[in-house]
Amino acid sequence: MTVIKVLQKPKLKNPILIVGLPGIGNIGRVGVGYLIDELKAKKFAELYSEHFFPFVILEENHEVKLLKNYLHYWKAKAKGRDLIFLTGDCQSQSSEGHYHMVETVLDFAKKLGVNDVITIGGLATGEVEEKPVVYGTLSEASLEKKYGKYKIDFGVHKKVGYIVGAAGLMLGLGRERGMKGICLLGETSGFPIVTDPKAAGAVLDVLLKIIGIKVNMKELDSRVKEMESFIKRIEGLQKKAVMEIVKDSKAPAKKDELRYIG
Amino acid sequence: MTVIKVLQKPKLKNPILIVGLPGIGNIGRVGVGYLIDELKAKKFAELYSEHFFPFVILEENHEVKLLKNYLHYWKAKAKGRDLIFLTGDCQSQSSEGHYHMVETVLDFAKKLGVNDVITIGGLATGEVEEKPVVYGTLSEASLEKKYGKYKIDFGVHKKVGYIVGAAGLMLGLGRERGMKGICLLGETSGFPIVTDPKAAGAVLDVLLKIIGIKVNMKELDSRVKEMESFIKRIEGLQKKAVMEIVKDSKAPAKKDELRYIG
Amino acid sequence: MTVIKVLQKPKLKNPILIVGLPGIGNIGRVGVGYLIDELKAKKFAELYSEHFFPFVILEENHEVKLLKNYLHYWKAKAKGRDLIFLTGDCQSQSSEGHYHMVETVLDFAKKLGVNDVITIGGLATGEVEEKPVVYGTLSEASLEKKYGKYKIDFGVHKKVGYIVGAAGLMLGLGRERGMKGICLLGETSGFPIVTDPKAAGAVLDVLLKIIGIKVNMKELDSRVKEMESFIKRIEGLQKKAVMEIVKDSKAPAKKDELRYIG
Amino acid sequence: MTVIKVLQKPKLKNPILIVGLPGIGNIGRVGVGYLIDELKAKKFAELYSEHFFPFVILEENHEVKLLKNYLHYWKAKAKGRDLIFLTGDCQSQSSEGHYHMVETVLDFAKKLGVNDVITIGGLATGEVEEKPVVYGTLSEASLEKKYGKYKIDFGVHKKVGYIVGAAGLMLGLGRERGMKGICLLGETSGFPIVTDPKAAGAVLDVLLKIIGIKVNMKELDSRVKEMESFIKRIEGLQKKAVMEIVKDSKAPAKKDELRYIG
Repeated sequence: MTVIKVLQKPKLKNPILIVGLPGIGNIGRVGVGYLIDELKAKKFAELYSEHFFPFVILEENHEVKLLKNYLHYWKAKAKGRDLIFLTGDCQSQSSEGHYHMVETVLDFAKKLGVNDVITIGGLATGEVEEKPVVYGTLSEASLEKKYGKYKIDFGVHKKVGYIVGAAGLMLGLGRERGMKGICLLGETSGFPIVTDPKAAGAVLDVLLKIIGIKVNMKELDSRVKEMESFIKRIEGLQKKAVMEIVKDSKAPAKKDELRYIG
Repeated sequence: MTVIKVLQKPKLKNPILIVGLPGIGNIGRVGVGYLIDELKAKKFAELYSEHFFPFVILEENHEVKLLKNYLHYWKAKAKGRDLIFLTGDCQSQSSEGHYHMVETVLDFAKKLGVNDVITIGGLATGEVEEKPVVYGTLSEASLEKKYGKYKIDFGVHKKVGYIVGAAGLMLGLGRERGMKGICLLGETSGFPIVTDPKAAGAVLDVLLKIIGIKVNMKELDSRVKEMESFIKRIEGLQKKAVMEIVKDSKAPAKKDELRYIG
Repeated sequence: MTVIKVLQKPKLKNPILIVGLPGIGNIGRVGVGYLIDELKAKKFAELYSEHFFPFVILEENHEVKLLKNYLHYWKAKAKGRDLIFLTGDCQSQSSEGHYHMVETVLDFAKKLGVNDVITIGGLATGEVEEKPVVYGTLSEASLEKKYGKYKIDFGVHKKVGYIVGAAGLMLGLGRERGMKGICLLGETSGFPIVTDPKAAGAVLDVLLKIIGIKVNMKELDSRVKEMESFIKRIEGLQKKAVMEIVKDSKAPAKKDELRYIG
Repeated sequence: MTVIKVLQKPKLKNPILIVGLPGIGNIGRVGVGYLIDELKAKKFAELYSEHFFPFVILEENHEVKLLKNYLHYWKAKAKGRDLIFLTGDCQSQSSEGHYHMVETVLDFAKKLGVNDVITIGGLATGEVEEKPVVYGTLSEASLEKKYGKYKIDFGVHKKVGYIVGAAGLMLGLGRERGMKGICLLGETSGFPIVTDPKAAGAVLDVLLKIIGIKVNMKELDSRVKEMESFIKRIEGLQKKAVMEIVKDSKAPAKKDELRYIG
């Protein structure tokens, strides 16, 4: 049960899917969130799923909030390409959930004409970086010709071995659908609760060059601070929830069960 | 596999769904249980699910009892609105289960004409309250006009960040189906095994004003005591079961598996 | 994925389903196993499932053995009722699995004309009993008229609160299909690895009176000893497997995941 | 969601399926990998699944790599039988996943005309063996006539009780589809990270005799060393991932949940 609720059916011109979900340093989440705001991108679909945590958030306006992911679109002014942004409150909480969610989004994006995907994440170094490097990894090696001209360090495989969750699976499962993609990772300290606007800014600088758009970056710091309080809250709640929630009890082992009855 | 067994198909007039399942202080469970008794509401559907614990309860009349949720209806005397009550022995034991169960019930309720949902739960304060506050949170902020006139404290988001399980998801997933809802939370100490009739009474006072019905509240304490022994028993059994049941063993990690064979 | 492989389609006369799966003291497993042998009941269906452990057993004849449950039938000589026996190597290892398996078997049995179910299990007392009591619990209280005449103690709810797994769910979920049932529990010490032929014998004595059949009980002890070595082996392997298998890793918590990448 | 992506539809002559997936000593993985290289077998299908870990590997060529299994075929020169090889990056990470994956592959193989399956694995002895024994176990005992003439020790059941994962389930579930099979297990120390070319060589010697093919074995050691670095990397990442990933949090126990709200 993963539902995409379509609010509007935009006609898009060769759109690029840009993915920024919660993750390390929340670089993808706040970077994409900032772009959506600055570009006044329009929300056109919402997504919720049994793979998210089974709770609702209590909001300041006295509403409950179902955990969701959101799709926004932005139409290019002239001959440029349109953009679709995927962001949201959380990622899946199970392995299968990660696969399901990414496939659900990719199948939906495919129908909207998406052939190119850019995902944004963070790479934890454990240290505070003055000038965060932007690392990149590709859905296929041949794309290095296209992306080689930007200030991207492709040596990320020397730093870490894998990318967990949507940022990586979007490329891997996207390739299976004939999509081409890059994952941009901002170097960050990786303290989980710290949202890192500097790393987000570094990644956005590269991203904006790739998509050929200019955006006023002056508000990034203050906007990230605004976003941070909400992100921190959900993050904190999930952590609390994980701790509260008793470890899965689906496997009654014969031995223990037998101690009682049956 | 979640089965709703329909015993009777009532025709209902603009019915309100009132949800009281086991939870903190069992306020929803005993509050709704008391209303069902006092109003002589009629059971018309039962629900069981693979998402419940895989055991049966041994009852005093020598029967086994499958874990279930129940739907009762009550027809208003004159021009009032009819009511549907959801209560039961337990909630789901898995994340996905919570989503499944709530969606199953909401889809069923939708067909019966339900557009309004009231859920009841508890808010644990850790202290014994002389006069328990009734907190409220809404499926959408605009409902504060409607519910603002009752003695409900909407500052609950300052106390806790989320609502786990059916009480919250009913509103969140209900809104996705165009339903409007409120969750009423009775302030209670939160000691898990203590069923709190005082908090249940405080919530019922507010609920009865909202639905415009008078009910004799004199029997609440004694009825709660009766209900408590059964609730305590299931609760105790589930706790015991959780402890007995060995943590899920679904992920044979390569490393460990390799130590043996394959 | 739960497969019932039908080897033969017997025509049965008002058959009773008798269930004896591994469990406490393995009373059901060895009791039903003994009856199958003595009555020369015929295997007519096998059942395997993704809900069982993901391994094969290495047998002495150099074969691997898939974990299975088995259905045998026995045709009554004269005007008596035919019997179906369910036994097997294991029960499900997950909560949902227990529900699935029991429902799969009951739906299959229903098609064969089964309206009555007798399940056999053990009740652990922690002490070695000279004359083990046979406890009983019913799918519905009205059956006490029928079963009251046998030497069954219906006070089991005073000893334990629930029955985990198939022995109980067969009655609970069977009732939802209009089936009537009794669960017979042999009093046993409950040391998990000890198969208890005395308790199995006590339960068989009652069972045989209920179904009105005479069976030579002299071989029980020696046959149980034969069965025990195989049962112990699977039991031991499952325990070993549970310990080897790393706890489920399906929920990448944001916090931890973030420490790395994504 | 388990996808088999067919790249080519070979017509095969009575093909044998040979399975070598990661496992103890990686004997199956490197043995089959070596055969694929030496025989220049052609990849014709790829398989990925929600049952694999939810991450992508970062490769040296700057690509991400989705975790996959692979099917290669080799056409016999003259009147011999064609071969299909199953190998890959990983096995399933859940119990149900093991069953699903094996059934998916077997159903696919059946359509290609496969009636015989040979799986390769390792048997951990804890000691470094100078001349590793090749153990064997069969899908059905009658096959001992056929396989008895090779240097295979069928006393493996005296050493271990079961085979976890694909190597065993391929035989067990294959038999349900009328397939005949043998599992060859190379005796190895079983230190999980050590890939054991000597044991792989011993198994290949037997395997090549069974399938009646000659292959230059001189490159085995050096090729295994090449393969090892990649295998070690995935293995290490999975171990790291398992440790990072918080134990499954799917079962909110009433008790704990109640401490908060709902």
